[in-house]
Amino acid sequence: MIMKNNNLKTVGMEKGQLYETIISSLSANGRKNAAPIGVLCKSEEEVAVYIYQGSHTHKNISNSDYFVVNLTTNPLLLTECTLGDIPADYFYEFKGNPVLKENDAFFISRVIKKKELVHENELGSSPMTVFTAKVEEIVKNEDVVRPLNRGIYAVIESLIHFTRLEIGDFETRQNIYLKIKEMDRVARRVGSASEKKALQEILEAVHEKYKDLE
Amino acid sequence: MIMKNNNLKTVGMEKGQLYETIISSLSANGRKNAAPIGVLCKSEEEVAVYIYQGSHTHKNISNSDYFVVNLTTNPLLLTECTLGDIPADYFYEFKGNPVLKENDAFFISRVIKKKELVHENELGSSPMTVFTAKVEEIVKNEDVVRPLNRGIYAVIESLIHFTRLEIGDFETRQNIYLKIKEMDRVARRVGSASEKKALQEILEAVHEKYKDLE
Repeated sequence: MIMKNNNLKTVGMEKGQLYETIISSLSANGRKNAAPIGVLCKSEEEVAVYIYQGSHTHKNISNSDYFVVNLTTNPLLLTECTLGDIPADYFYEFKGNPVLKENDAFFISRVIKKKELVHENELGSSPMTVFTAKVEEIVKNEDVVRPLNRGIYAVIESLIHFTRLEIGDFETRQNIYLKIKEMDRVARRVGSASEKKALQEILEAVHEKYKDLE
Repeated sequence: MIMKNNNLKTVGMEKGQLYETIISSLSANGRKNAAPIGVLCKSEEEVAVYIYQGSHTHKNISNSDYFVVNLTTNPLLLTECTLGDIPADYFYEFKGNPVLKENDAFFISRVIKKKELVHENELGSSPMTVFTAKVEEIVKNEDVVRPLNRGIYAVIESLIHFTRLEIGDFETRQNIYLKIKEMDRVARRVGSASEKKALQEILEAVHEKYKDLE
């Protein structure tokens, strides 16, 4: 089924959540690029992406002010796009934009705002640009699209970790606890309100039951 | 929509994959129990569950030869069932079986085979029973049911880890590598053929690019 519109709800994307997607973009000399990138749903018709400066995607979006968000759950396609450049014949052209032939849905996004920031983490600082974009057109290839969000998995992983806290010595339990805290960070960054709340409840239960962990 | 049948494909479950579910069961004295448990899809009409001996679920299934598989993506419900006993009013009775009021779909399973085994891991050994069961009736409450499978998540996490291998010292990278190997175990246990293949490709790329990791 092909259905065109510009409301992100039709592809299952909810405001405030971040989805794992493949972004395709075009270079100034016509070269098609695809990279796995998290896309934040800002509203029903707006997204934001945080892109490292120096990347192909950054150069292409800065140059054209357009990018395509491809939604797929194909593990091999996601892997190929991460490990290296994919062949040119994986793409086709849709109204001047490079689109992956294989996806469950895609949408054309037009940049309406740019903001520079520096992302700091334990390994150093990296300059990034936040591109806010308007959804111009959504094309669905599947009746039901399931955009990939890590929130519910962060909850599931944490619950599995929680049940394992009963066994093992202090060091083992401390390591498990750190994994739950990592999942809490994931949920807070990408998840829904109830996924964040679930993680809070899990952490409270851990603190109540295992007072030695920190 | 309520649709009754006994083919697991109608709730999105595929042969060979393991799904995170909530199993509800009834004790000999009529007490309803719910626990988060992985359910292996053996065929379109058969599942298998590995249950620790000594658990309520084990006692109930051994006693009644019946259990209910509830499919839900509600993070708070999954959390409540893991952290403790849920209130009696979370259940209703369906043909003598306890079913969660809130779920996207559920199915009644009748045990047709039991096998005892001992699960060995780094923390000791635990006796378990593998119950193989026939799906007697599926009830769908949602048009589209998305059963929770950790396979694609294992791929996504591994790809995120892979991109982080470029930065950091040896110890950091070694820790990241161990996380990818953990995700490989998850994919092999619960995932689809292409999710397993994706993990293989990721590990091959790691070995090729970072020969110091082991």
